[in-house]
Amino acid sequence: MNTSENMKARLVDYIEAFNAADASRVVALFADNASVEDPVGTPLKEGKSEIETFYTYATTVGARLELMAPPRGSHGNSASISFRVHITGQDGRPAHIDVTDVMDFDAAGKILRMRAYWGADDYHVLADAS
Amino acid sequence: MNTSENMKARLVDYIEAFNAADASRVVALFADNASVEDPVGTPLKEGKSEIETFYTYATTVGARLELMAPPRGSHGNSASISFRVHITGQDGRPAHIDVTDVMDFDAAGKILRMRAYWGADDYHVLADAS
Repeated sequence: MNTSENMKARLVDYIEAFNAADASRVVALFADNASVEDPVGTPLKEGKSEIETFYTYATTVGARLELMAPPRGSHGNSASISFRVHITGQDGRPAHIDVTDVMDFDAAGKILRMRAYWGADDYHVLADAS
Repeated sequence: MNTSENMKARLVDYIEAFNAADASRVVALFADNASVEDPVGTPLKEGKSEIETFYTYATTVGARLELMAPPRGSHGNSASISFRVHITGQDGRPAHIDVTDVMDFDAAGKILRMRAYWGADDYHVLADAS
């Protein structure tokens, strides 16, 4: 049953599994025929295999998600979550990306479609603190 | 030109015009053939007339939007914004709704599609402070 509360609980699971670098646990939240558009405007990752490759990479490089606001539900089968992705930039300096994910759920409560809203200007390299 | 920065600037315009209770200025941000789904899962408001009716009501009842995180762009024609809607509840007590809006823009930079993600459990009546 996709109540707003259930969908939001799954989004929190998503954040926790991601931050535990547990790609299998993240991927288990998705339906077999799911798609991931991250960021919105780029080609879809379609199906469990492509989605697993994507999350295995994302969790291996040490990205960490910081929730920035409570998840939002809907009156339908969608919910959204806003967070900051902390990463190490290509030059070794800390960086972050401000992201909002929108997820659509299927009847079984699995994520059917994930769309990550962030643009090039949502990527911020932190100033050197030294 | 729908750069991520331009779309985000329009989202900030949206917030400012809404908080100025200037429904005409809000509606001017939309394309003639725009649709508004607020909240997601309910029937669309379609076209300028329905959209104007919606925003005239929403601004007249004194709702005020508080930005909760920086707007997010995308690598396409979409951007999102997360805010808290401060309202007076039906019993006169202050209340708020936690919302994330996703907006798709047309080639002219007008909002073509607005989807507001919030569920019944994103509506919070504040405890009586007395």
